[in-house]
Amino acid sequence: MNFIQKLEKAIRKNNSLLCVGLDSDLEKLPKTFLKKNDPVFEFNKFIIDQTSDLVCAYKPQIAYYEAKGIEGLKSLKRTVEYINKKYPYIPIICDAKRADIGSTSQQYAKSLFDYFSFDAITVNPYLGFDAIEPFLNYKNKGIIILCRTSNPGASDFQDLKINKTPLYIEVAKKVVTWNKTYGNCLMVVGATWPQQLKKVRALAKDMFFLIPGIGVQGGSLEKTLEAGLTKNKSGLIINSSRGIIFSENPRTAALQLRNNINKYR
Amino acid sequence: MNFIQKLEKAIRKNNSLLCVGLDSDLEKLPKTFLKKNDPVFEFNKFIIDQTSDLVCAYKPQIAYYEAKGIEGLKSLKRTVEYINKKYPYIPIICDAKRADIGSTSQQYAKSLFDYFSFDAITVNPYLGFDAIEPFLNYKNKGIIILCRTSNPGASDFQDLKINKTPLYIEVAKKVVTWNKTYGNCLMVVGATWPQQLKKVRALAKDMFFLIPGIGVQGGSLEKTLEAGLTKNKSGLIINSSRGIIFSENPRTAALQLRNNINKYR
Repeated sequence: MNFIQKLEKAIRKNNSLLCVGLDSDLEKLPKTFLKKNDPVFEFNKFIIDQTSDLVCAYKPQIAYYEAKGIEGLKSLKRTVEYINKKYPYIPIICDAKRADIGSTSQQYAKSLFDYFSFDAITVNPYLGFDAIEPFLNYKNKGIIILCRTSNPGASDFQDLKINKTPLYIEVAKKVVTWNKTYGNCLMVVGATWPQQLKKVRALAKDMFFLIPGIGVQGGSLEKTLEAGLTKNKSGLIINSSRGIIFSENPRTAALQLRNNINKYR
Repeated sequence: MNFIQKLEKAIRKNNSLLCVGLDSDLEKLPKTFLKKNDPVFEFNKFIIDQTSDLVCAYKPQIAYYEAKGIEGLKSLKRTVEYINKKYPYIPIICDAKRADIGSTSQQYAKSLFDYFSFDAITVNPYLGFDAIEPFLNYKNKGIIILCRTSNPGASDFQDLKINKTPLYIEVAKKVVTWNKTYGNCLMVVGATWPQQLKKVRALAKDMFFLIPGIGVQGGSLEKTLEAGLTKNKSGLIINSSRGIIFSENPRTAALQLRNNINKYR
């Protein structure tokens, strides 16, 4: 089963387009977890058990684990193993935004796909095709390429116009062609920019998009869904991280967001 | 002492613009190291001891360590500690090409600067200023921003023209302004493209550039130096990885390249 099939199955099983971002910053963890042996893993386990029937994917942001060095990466590996054992039908996306010259990207692929066993990863397009190719060759994995990101600085370069076409659209066009080989490409399009999302959807009618920026970053859910859903009311992985995992009741927060999304489907 | 001062001191001490890239792929290591307890660290130690009087910097490519998972990162940490203890005057650049939304970049900075104690890192500009800012705020560290990379796919996006100006020049212009705050920016400009290097030098007359692509990737040393040296015959960190560390005699290879570079200074 490839990533897209696994994702679609999880979407159906949990009737959900919600992805919970495991940005498990040790400094923000509820105090009860800090006494435990591996606080970050125990926290993740709690969040996962609270939300496993509400999500289509989990997305650990690897930077939060790397910030804690080798111990942090142990917590990450344990988290992936836990999900794969207890909820093997839920895909895990590693938000890593990697890319380098081909021989180096190959090493990142080894790390994220072979060593950590992630189902999908995010990658950065700035270096062009040969930097993405080693990832694409893992045909059963999902390769989620940054198109239009959710942060304020996104406009610095992504909106620059090449013959009236913004750079992020040039990226989207390339991704559509790269997707032809194995159909394993997805794109990141920030929820903070529904107009841009609409343009990318017009170019990639059936492709899945990972949507960060709902919640803390301020993106509107209604506008995002209106602009981004495919004809069959799917095609989006709506991520929320801090808004769920650090809320008073993560299960309630996830349930509400899952249901709010489904109102528009 | 900030990164640029440390770098300039090492350049003077070793009369060298050569940076040795520690892309220590376990599969390519000489067999004698494989029997050791930590082959990658022992190999790095050997390379470092062979070249410490010939380089201005070392540059581990973090992907090669991540590919080996937690054990690989332990080897990397030991390598950094070894250099910092025995050769504290040689700066260490982590080639990691990170960048994400601000709060996430902050976590990467914690990992690479606080946890691993690197002196400088490479970062990717696609997400714009707020993705780079958390790194820049480490004013004593070197922030090396990708401008024009050395790989074939670099032309996919970096050469696209915005009103006749290629994207990589737009990036270079922004970096020049970002550099005004703390003077801690550098750029990556591939040796495979001397014409582009010349254009970037014209914009950033005194800035240091990290130059990959000499050696295995085929860049011409003479053309690179002609196009890239500053007025005072400095301003370049010329990286060679595989061409030195996997050569029959790494010391001879490093000595030759160091001296060849100096012929043009």
